[in-house]
Amino acid sequence: MWRPFFEQYHLIIVQDGDPLRKIKVPDGFDYELYNRNDISRILGPKAACISFKDSACRCFGYLVSKKKYIFTIDDDCFVAKDPSGKAINALEQHIQNLLTPSTPHFFNTLYDPYREGVDFVRGYPFGLRQGVPTAVSHGLWLNIPDYDAPTQLVKPLERNARYVDAVMTVPKGTLFPMCGMNLAFDRELIGPAMYFGLMGDGQPIGRYDDMWAGWCMKVICDHLGLGVKTGLPYIWHSKASNPFVNLKKEYNGIFWQEKAIPFSQSAVLPKECDNVQKCYLALAGEVKSKLGELDPYFVKLGDAIVTWIEAWDEVNKSPVIKSAKLLPNGTSKKA
Amino acid sequence: MWRPFFEQYHLIIVQDGDPLRKIKVPDGFDYELYNRNDISRILGPKAACISFKDSACRCFGYLVSKKKYIFTIDDDCFVAKDPSGKAINALEQHIQNLLTPSTPHFFNTLYDPYREGVDFVRGYPFGLRQGVPTAVSHGLWLNIPDYDAPTQLVKPLERNARYVDAVMTVPKGTLFPMCGMNLAFDRELIGPAMYFGLMGDGQPIGRYDDMWAGWCMKVICDHLGLGVKTGLPYIWHSKASNPFVNLKKEYNGIFWQEKAIPFSQSAVLPKECDNVQKCYLALAGEVKSKLGELDPYFVKLGDAIVTWIEAWDEVNKSPVIKSAKLLPNGTSKKA
Repeated sequence: MWRPFFEQYHLIIVQDGDPLRKIKVPDGFDYELYNRNDISRILGPKAACISFKDSACRCFGYLVSKKKYIFTIDDDCFVAKDPSGKAINALEQHIQNLLTPSTPHFFNTLYDPYREGVDFVRGYPFGLRQGVPTAVSHGLWLNIPDYDAPTQLVKPLERNARYVDAVMTVPKGTLFPMCGMNLAFDRELIGPAMYFGLMGDGQPIGRYDDMWAGWCMKVICDHLGLGVKTGLPYIWHSKASNPFVNLKKEYNGIFWQEKAIPFSQSAVLPKECDNVQKCYLALAGEVKSKLGELDPYFVKLGDAIVTWIEAWDEVNKSPVIKSAKLLPNGTSKKA
Repeated sequence: MWRPFFEQYHLIIVQDGDPLRKIKVPDGFDYELYNRNDISRILGPKAACISFKDSACRCFGYLVSKKKYIFTIDDDCFVAKDPSGKAINALEQHIQNLLTPSTPHFFNTLYDPYREGVDFVRGYPFGLRQGVPTAVSHGLWLNIPDYDAPTQLVKPLERNARYVDAVMTVPKGTLFPMCGMNLAFDRELIGPAMYFGLMGDGQPIGRYDDMWAGWCMKVICDHLGLGVKTGLPYIWHSKASNPFVNLKKEYNGIFWQEKAIPFSQSAVLPKECDNVQKCYLALAGEVKSKLGELDPYFVKLGDAIVTWIEAWDEVNKSPVIKSAKLLPNGTSKKA
């Protein structure tokens, strides 16, 4: 299903779980495949910051990519159709979202003012109409909605059939639940903030990887004057995960988010933090000192953020790593 | 066209311009009609705060209404159709928007979580899921979009044909351009903030009545913990006003909004302002002292806000006025 949409791009597959398991990638795709052994070999002791047995492991792919635009997708997501029955080219829409500015400082009631056939409405300040660069494009899901375990348990049959034909900027100062199922970002603008945390194997929490990244990323985007969009494109989410398993993974997160979200909402980054790395390191310090009181997990998470940033800078700056051609299928394609 | 949707409600018609002109209201409507002479008679010298020859005059209707829910609409707005071809009951949707809570503290990516078939998505804090009371419901327009004069001049043929099937809360701390064309609000919660300013005849500005109300109302809602929604319902906007005439009315506003919006964005109301009137009076003081430097108009506007609040309290509290039956068609209906 994805072939016509993905085959012109470069794929990075991060294989979770048993590294001896063999993943068969269909012919004709330009890809790199990393399993746990590869992650350990490439990052050495710093591999500890990459989660295992949780979808959080995907952020290793963000770290080793050499592309400007990243699209990340779950394995149970398929091509959705728009109301006219046409297959949706999710990547094309994400790239369009990322290539046009965002408008975080004032809300446009007709939604994305850069879309064809729309503009800024009466009363929109002219000084803000140039917008800001877009760092993140958050896409949505038809069919199975992205619900937490309690909502899944309460509404097992709920399906999302509503196609909302809109893309909008999440306003400055507003947080949102960023889902990693259908997500794109500009790696040059925001890459180091897209850390999916310590989740899964050996950790007291799972299924909060994308949420964590979403809170931190948004605080950093707001500080650096970058934009975040949500809305189109839709993908078709086919398989609801098991709510009982999910509840076990989520229950600490459900409790902790009541503190972690107000923490993120009130986080203020120092003026001297003028790039993503500096911002995230400053935030890591706050995480340790303020959320560490909630649970020692957050001290570990704060340290892992520091390790992640070190790993990011090492992999992305060292000419040795670059010339080592760790990316067997590296091409010059755009994404 | 509106008959099936309006006839069960109570109408207030505010007649602008020449009071000797006769407005013919079709049979079967329960209405009150006020012209300029009525406004002067009822408010006395305080009538000076009600604009003349501008759509701002409509706020007199808000002041004298005895209903809980107000819907205000322009004379060039007609019944729109949804994508299935069904006539949209705008009032029903507005009332639904007002009767369900708003979620200004965290963004729900599947839009209105209180709508049937939708809920809060994974990662939405449980402590925020009860929402806050909704004070304002801002509807949109198919066909002629609500553009300012410069955009009308540049894009004379642009029409809005996109039906976006969503209602969303404008997040706390975010301002938006509130259009008075298709607007509803809870008069008990926010009525005194819905002042449409000094516009039109004798004023250096027009067509900013709803924008002014939108900025002030949103600052007050954010302070008082009230919600504002935008999106559905759509009406059909039939007649684009003359862009040359509009430019003449708007040009000061286009210039002033570049200062007035940052002023509103940074406005902080004192904690002791615990009702709408106190909030608006505090804001009026700020308008005079901070925007008064931009133009003496804002000093006059600040004084007019004080007059408006006095008039509101007089008309709405005095038993003499109430028993005088100023509302010839007053009924016990809900809106």
